[in-house]
Amino acid sequence: MTNILAAENIPETARIELAQQGLTIINRADVSQAQLAEIDIMFGWNKVIGPQILAIPNHRLKWIQTATSGIDYLPLQTLIDQNILVTNARGMHAVPIAQTVMSYLLYFTRGIYQSLNAQRQQVWDHHPIGQSTMTLEGRTILIFGTGQIGEKVAQYAQMMGLKTIGVNRNGEPINHFEQIVTTETVDQVLEQADFIVNGMPLTSETTDYFNADFFAKVAAGTYFFNVGRGKSVNEAALMAALNAGQLAGAAIDVAQNEPLVADSPLWSTPNLVITPHISGYIPDLHERVYTVFARNLPTFLADGHLTYNTVSLTEGY
Amino acid sequence: MTNILAAENIPETARIELAQQGLTIINRADVSQAQLAEIDIMFGWNKVIGPQILAIPNHRLKWIQTATSGIDYLPLQTLIDQNILVTNARGMHAVPIAQTVMSYLLYFTRGIYQSLNAQRQQVWDHHPIGQSTMTLEGRTILIFGTGQIGEKVAQYAQMMGLKTIGVNRNGEPINHFEQIVTTETVDQVLEQADFIVNGMPLTSETTDYFNADFFAKVAAGTYFFNVGRGKSVNEAALMAALNAGQLAGAAIDVAQNEPLVADSPLWSTPNLVITPHISGYIPDLHERVYTVFARNLPTFLADGHLTYNTVSLTEGY
Repeated sequence: MTNILAAENIPETARIELAQQGLTIINRADVSQAQLAEIDIMFGWNKVIGPQILAIPNHRLKWIQTATSGIDYLPLQTLIDQNILVTNARGMHAVPIAQTVMSYLLYFTRGIYQSLNAQRQQVWDHHPIGQSTMTLEGRTILIFGTGQIGEKVAQYAQMMGLKTIGVNRNGEPINHFEQIVTTETVDQVLEQADFIVNGMPLTSETTDYFNADFFAKVAAGTYFFNVGRGKSVNEAALMAALNAGQLAGAAIDVAQNEPLVADSPLWSTPNLVITPHISGYIPDLHERVYTVFARNLPTFLADGHLTYNTVSLTEGY
Repeated sequence: MTNILAAENIPETARIELAQQGLTIINRADVSQAQLAEIDIMFGWNKVIGPQILAIPNHRLKWIQTATSGIDYLPLQTLIDQNILVTNARGMHAVPIAQTVMSYLLYFTRGIYQSLNAQRQQVWDHHPIGQSTMTLEGRTILIFGTGQIGEKVAQYAQMMGLKTIGVNRNGEPINHFEQIVTTETVDQVLEQADFIVNGMPLTSETTDYFNADFFAKVAAGTYFFNVGRGKSVNEAALMAALNAGQLAGAAIDVAQNEPLVADSPLWSTPNLVITPHISGYIPDLHERVYTVFARNLPTFLADGHLTYNTVSLTEGY
C-alpha cells in the first residue's frame, strides 16, 4: 500500500487515476498523527507536517515532489541523511515568462501601444501608427541570462527573425543564441541591441546592474524588459532613461519593492508597461506539477527510481 | 547598357551597388521622353509612364518588379503580348501580419490588457491578474485561410504550444497545421477553438461570414482576430458577442468602412482592440522589394531569366 500526502492540491482527474492504480491519497487537512508514519510520497511540501514526518523513527517517506523550482526552504541535510529523493517544478515557468517577453516586444513593435491611445481618442490613424511599427527581421535582442527562460525567449525571438545574443558568465554556447558574450565583454555588443531582456537571478553581481551607467551605454531608442528581479534595476535610472527617450519603451514584471506602492512615479512613467509579477504565473500549476509527478510514478513504484526534474540536494538545485 | 526606371524609390545603398555593376538608374521624376525607349527594367509601376513605354515601338522593357502583391492594376494582356516578365512583392506582408496576430493573442493571454488597466489606477493586482492569464499549451487556434498569412500564424502559434486547425476550400494539408477542415466541415471543430483568426480574402462567400449565427456557434470565451477584410465581419454581431461576453476579446485590423468614423460604437466596445489597418504595414517596404529584385538581377542580366516572386500574367497572381 502506497500512501501519498497531498500537501498541495492533487487535481480531481489525477485522484481517480491514482486510486485506480491502488494508491491512497491523504489530504493535508485530513492526515492523522498515526498516518504520518505511513506516508510514502509527499506531493508538495508543508513546513509543519514535513518536519513532523522526518522526525518519526522508521517513517516511510521516500519522495517529495515540490510545486516550486527553488528548494532552498527544504531541510536539505536531513533529506540527504535520510536518503529522501526530491523532484521539483523547474522549467514550468520558462514558457509563460518567455511568452510574456514576446507580448511586451510585440506590444511595442506592432503598433498596439499607439493604437490603444488612438482608440481612446476614436481616431483611425493609419499612416502615423503604421510608420511607428517595426519589423523584427534583422533586429537584435540581447538577453541577460541564458537559463531556461533566456533560452526560451531566444527561441521565440529567433523564429520571429531577430538576431539573438546571450549574456552568461562563461561564454558557454547555448541553443537558439547566435552569439554569446560574458558580462565582461557585453559592452562590445550593447549598442547593437534593439531589445534588452533581463532574465538573471538576483546575486550581489546583478544587484543594481541596470543603472544609469548601463542605460547611458545602450543605443538611443532601445527597449528594455525586466522579467528577472526588481533589485537588478535602478528604478530612478530606468525612469530617467524613459523620460529622456534614451529608452523607447520598457516593461517590468518585477519591482525593487513589491507590491509597488500606489504613489510610485513608475506607474505614470511614459512608455512603461508594468505587469504585477505575473509573467510566470501559471493558473494550472498543480496540473503541471502533477504531470511531472505522473511521469516519475511508474519507476518509483517499480524500483524507487526517479527520472524527471530530479534535484541534487547537495548542490541545492 | 542596362537602364532601370525607379518608379518606386530604390534605396541609397542599392543605388551604389547597381552603379558598381554598371547599371544606370533613372528616377521617375527625371526620365526624358527619349530615355523611355531605353528602359530595360521598371522598379515599381507608374500608371502614366508605364503605358507610355509599352506604346513605344521597339521599346526595351523586359521586366517589371512591383512593390505590391496584387497585380490586377497592370495592363496584363499587353504585357503578355509583349513578353514582359513581372515579379511582385508577395510574402512580405505575411510575417508582420502574423506577428500582429501573435501580439493580439499575447496581449489578451499574458495579462497585458488587465495590467494596463490596473496601471492606470496605480494598483499592483498580482493574484487577480495572474489568475486572468492563460497558458497556451493545449489551447486551440482555428485559422480561416491557409495562405502565407495563415501558415505563418500557424507556425508561430504551434511553436508557442497551440494546436493549429486551418480552414481552406479543399481540405488540402498545409505545413504547421495539425488539422485542416473545409468551410463545409468547420462547424465540427468550431467549439474546440480558443482563438479564431480570419485571414481570408474578400469574396462573395466570405462577405458577412462572421455574423451572429457564427458567433453563436463558438464556445463562450473565445477570442476573435480579424486581419482579413472588414466586410467579412458583421460588426453589429461582433459588438453584440463582445458585449454579451460570448467573445472574451477581439482585435480587428480592418473595418467594414475605413477609415472607421469617429462616432462608431466599435471604438468603445469592451475587450476590443482596434488597429488601423497596420498589421501588414512595412516601414522599409522598398528595401524588401529591392532584396527580391537583387536576387533576380544576376539571372536576368545573364539570360533574361527570373526565379523569385514571379507571377503568372494569365492567372493574375
